[in-house]
Formats: sequence, structure tokens, C-alpha cells
Amino acid sequence: MGNITLKMLAKELNLSTAAISKALKDSHEISAVTKLRVQALANQLNYIPNPYAGSLRQRKSKTIAVVIPEVADSFFSLALNGIESVAIEKGYHALIYLTHEKIAREKAILKDLQSGRVDGVLMSVTVETESAGHISELIGKVPLVFFDRVCEEIDTAKVTTDDYESAYNATNHLIEQGCKNIILLSISNNLSISSKRMEGYKQSLVDHGIKHRRSNIILCGNDPVKNYALIKKIMTRAPRPDGILATVEKLTTEIYLVCQLLQIKIPGDLKVVCFSNLTTAAILNPSLTTVTQPAFEMGKAAATILFKALEKKNAKLSKESQVIPSVLSLRNSSAGI
Amino acid sequence: MGNITLKMLAKELNLSTAAISKALKDSHEISAVTKLRVQALANQLNYIPNPYAGSLRQRKSKTIAVVIPEVADSFFSLALNGIESVAIEKGYHALIYLTHEKIAREKAILKDLQSGRVDGVLMSVTVETESAGHISELIGKVPLVFFDRVCEEIDTAKVTTDDYESAYNATNHLIEQGCKNIILLSISNNLSISSKRMEGYKQSLVDHGIKHRRSNIILCGNDPVKNYALIKKIMTRAPRPDGILATVEKLTTEIYLVCQLLQIKIPGDLKVVCFSNLTTAAILNPSLTTVTQPAFEMGKAAATILFKALEKKNAKLSKESQVIPSVLSLRNSSAGI
Repeated sequence: MGNITLKMLAKELNLSTAAISKALKDSHEISAVTKLRVQALANQLNYIPNPYAGSLRQRKSKTIAVVIPEVADSFFSLALNGIESVAIEKGYHALIYLTHEKIAREKAILKDLQSGRVDGVLMSVTVETESAGHISELIGKVPLVFFDRVCEEIDTAKVTTDDYESAYNATNHLIEQGCKNIILLSISNNLSISSKRMEGYKQSLVDHGIKHRRSNIILCGNDPVKNYALIKKIMTRAPRPDGILATVEKLTTEIYLVCQLLQIKIPGDLKVVCFSNLTTAAILNPSLTTVTQPAFEMGKAAATILFKALEKKNAKLSKESQVIPSVLSLRNSSAGI
Repeated sequence: MGNITLKMLAKELNLSTAAISKALKDSHEISAVTKLRVQALANQLNYIPNPYAGSLRQRKSKTIAVVIPEVADSFFSLALNGIESVAIEKGYHALIYLTHEKIAREKAILKDLQSGRVDGVLMSVTVETESAGHISELIGKVPLVFFDRVCEEIDTAKVTTDDYESAYNATNHLIEQGCKNIILLSISNNLSISSKRMEGYKQSLVDHGIKHRRSNIILCGNDPVKNYALIKKIMTRAPRPDGILATVEKLTTEIYLVCQLLQIKIPGDLKVVCFSNLTTAAILNPSLTTVTQPAFEMGKAAATILFKALEKKNAKLSKESQVIPSVLSLRNSSAGI
């Protein structure tokens, strides 16, 4: 009987939901007789008030949730700063939930958010997110804006960067620097951003008349030890790769350590470009050429869109999508000799 | 009149608070007459039920809060992983709140947590936290465990690392490598960890018969541009410093960039040790000697203590403090020539 709603009580008694709500709160605006009628029916039907419903309707939780895979990646820590720059201005708390790239965690978190704990959600999906049922379910109840890692099939606002173009440009750059055998290191076959980066990489090879080899696209995981072993295996292949485009920041350390071990010189023997917002990119040995994503700006844009929806009734979130371009920051790891 | 509590109703009617609660929820366990008496008094006194009270008492929110200054620092991202490794096992959500080193944010967050939104709190205070009134207020309502940055005056569990000893050992190491004019870069005069690191640094100088100069202790801030300018100024002093102990990870990039600009060779002209958990420490130019903190273990230990308290009534949190030692990881930035 937990499903009795204010609306049902209102219909039964031919009153507004607001009147029911006020009656249950013993408001002075409601007559004693009406209060008794409402209370009697509520008792009869065993109506259990949703403790969050009031705050939900009035947007009183004054909190938003940010659901992201991790914070060790500087893209996400910068995006969080962008999100909070808006949330703080609006007097909101941002609750950060980490999925650790696990779909089971993501589902549990989204279920928890259905309770009305927060007024809105900003989200980047996990590498395991293939279906979107759990997201659709939440969207009916709480406005949600994707940033970076989006679910294409869900009709809501999305803030992304130009993943296809930036991978295309980065691969062009490696080819122009003399690379002929370029490895693409990816972390997912599902993620929208991974697919787009892969397409950009492939198109650049095609446009330069370089045959694309499937064995040059490598799927890495979350375990640094396994990634290290995988990269080591690739770098002992014959013919040895002469370029790497890594689509995720955390692979940088393993690439550099493998090259130290195998005495492969960067950029002499191998040129490297990473999608990365590492502040240490400029002080690595050698300094790292990066696809620098507009992380702060993306977080800020996503939060701005969400608050627009929170402040306006029936705002159409799907019409608010934005693409903010990344920048190729040239440093020594891809320099010509 | 929002201060009428279940307890007051119970006293007035000579019933237990449990009976009052059940009566207000129209429980079958309570007689119709009692229900009417309770409801009448509740109406008369305008009793407003606390929507979170039920979940608080029953520990049903199944969430804990983690209140930390930032996530861009790898100490905190690793500590979060340690915390979540425990929370997930216990079936809990961890909500992460960022203070961005602002005391006003910290106060606002702790006030929000008083509502009973979470069952427990893990916390590292801001650089601005001087008084602890806002923390004491929360502690009466929700169990709280400090990790890393603690409030000494608050009587609750604290998980820390050996800040004094690790700064002492790091300074000893720099002196043994030949440094005579060592700068300490700090970020706070208030933080317990900063004071302890400073004391360890000073004691090492004393023990080696090196005169401590106040001008060698430098207070940095949150703005990388200002920190860069500050470090540049210090590195153009005569006589030029020959060693730096940085008590916070984020200063690494500025130290290295200043040395690049001024053509100061690390470790030839300047030896550097940082408190840092950067995964890129080993691939910097040169690789960085670090005080490596047991970040994951500290997060895990703090969460373990908190859940022990959540599972036991009246657990004495103050008796559960732990100190987990850091490790000095020697690399090239402090090598002898």
C-alpha cells in the first residue's frame, strides 16, 4: 500500500494535491473539517508520505548529484571544479558518486537517486554501460544532463568534446611526424567517446593511404599491472610500433615505464600522444603531447544547462546539447628528430 | 514550533517514543484511541515530523559522506578508493562533498549533513579550518571519523600518517645528500599535518646543527600562477636554495617549471622531495623522490572504524585512532651527483 499518492487522495476527495498536502501538515489555511476528512482517508488507505516528495517538488533538496567513473583522472577532477563553480553560485551542494566503471554500481546509484534525494543529475557513464534502461527510469523523475561519456539513445542534453576530430587531428599529427605503424590504445568498445576516437583514428589512416590493421587497436582495462604487461607485449612486436595514440590519461605512466624498461626512446623510436589533462604533462621525461580536453568548461556547461532546467518548468533538455572543442598541445613526445 | 519532538509528545502522553512514532504512522500495533490522542496532541502542538529521523535511527539512509578539500590531489583520490572499498562491501553509498579549501563551504556542508542525510561522516578539514564549533555540532548527531587532516581538539577517531617523522626523515635525506639551505613549502599555518611536517623539518635541521631560518618556510596557496611566481622569487634568492621539501603534491609542477625557466638543474643544483602520491612521479624529468603516503590504507582504515561504530551502539570512536606510516621513495630528484 506504499503506492498511495497525494494525487490519489486528492482525486478521491475532489481537492487539489496542494490542499491535501497542507491538510496533512495541519496547515492553518485548511479548515478543521477538511483536515479530518483528509486524515481519515489517509489513515484508511495507509498513506505513507514520501519524506523526499516535498523537497522534490519544491526543489528544496538544494543538491545535485554528479555520477562519474572515477576522480583519479584529471579530466573528471577538472570537470568537477567546473560543475561546482556553477552549483556554489546557485547555493547548491554537489554530491559526487563514483561508479568505479562498474555498471552494477551505476544502477545502484541511479536507483538511490530515484528517491528524490537530489534535484538533478550530471553523469558520465561507465565503460560497462551498454543498455540504458536504468537511466531512462531515472530521467522520468529527475532531470539529467550527460557530459563527456554520453548515452546516445537517451533524449536529453549532452555536453561533449569533438572526440572524432581530435583523434583525427592527433593521428594526422603522428603521421606527419613520420609514423607509419600507429597503435590506438582504447579502454572500451561501448563508450561513445571511444568509438568516435577510434573512427577519427581510422579515417586519418585512410586519408593518408595507410592500411588499417585491426591488431593495432588495443583494448586496455582498469588494472595498471595488466595494462603494463599489454603495452610491453605490443612494444616487443616486430615490426615495432612507431606511434601511440592513447585515448585515456592513465595509460601514460605505463607507456613511459615500458619504454624505460625496453630502452625505447621517446620520441626517437616512438612518438606518443595522449588524451590527457595532466598538469604534469609539461614536466614528464619527455614532455607529453596531449589532446587537452576542455574539462572545466564541459563541467560548467553541463551544470549551467541543468540549472536552467531546474529553474524553468518543462525546459526541453534535449535541445541544449553542446560540443566544446579540444586542443592538440604539441610537446616533445611527438617531436621530429 | 518546529522544535516539538517525538520525545516531548511521549512525555506529555506518558508513552514511549516508539509508541508515538507508530501511532503517527497509523500502526496496527497501536490502539485506535491512543492513535487519536497522539494525533490530536501532534496537531495541537503543530508537530512536524523530521523526514530523515526514521532513516537516521534505523541507519536506513545507507550512505556515508566523505568531506574533503579536493580530488585533484592523488592522495584524496586514492583515499576515496580505500573508503569505497569498505563502503561497497557494506552495501553503502559514499557521497563525496568538496570544500575547495573554503571554511564557509565546509560549514554549509556540515550543516546540511545535520539533517540526517547520511549515517556517518569521514572528513579531512580545509586549510582555513581554525575553530571546530561546526564540527562539534555535527558530532552530537552523526558519527564522524577524521582522516589525514584532523581537528586535534575534537574527541573522535583519527586516522593519520606519521607526518612529523616523514618530514624529519625527508629533511635528513636532503641534508645527507649535501643540502645546506633547504626550503620548506607549506600550504597552511593551521593544519595539523602542516604543523607536524614543519616541526619534523625543523628538528632535522637542529639535529644536524643547521641554523633554521624563518624565511626558508614559505606559505603557498591554491593558485598555481601565484605559487609559480612565489617559487620563482625564492629560486632567484642569493644564496640560492639547494633543497626543497614540498609538503603538498600540487607544487611539483611549479617547482619543475621554474627550474626549467631558470635553467636550474635537478638534482645537480637543487634537490627536491615532495609529499606526493602522483603515479607520474617515476616518469618526471627527473623522476621525483616522494614521501609516499598510505592513502588507500588510510581511507580504508577510517571507513572500517566508522562502520564499526555504525554497527555497534555506543562505540567509543575516540579510542580507535590509528597512525599508518609513510614511505620515503628515493628517485633521481634528490640523487647525489
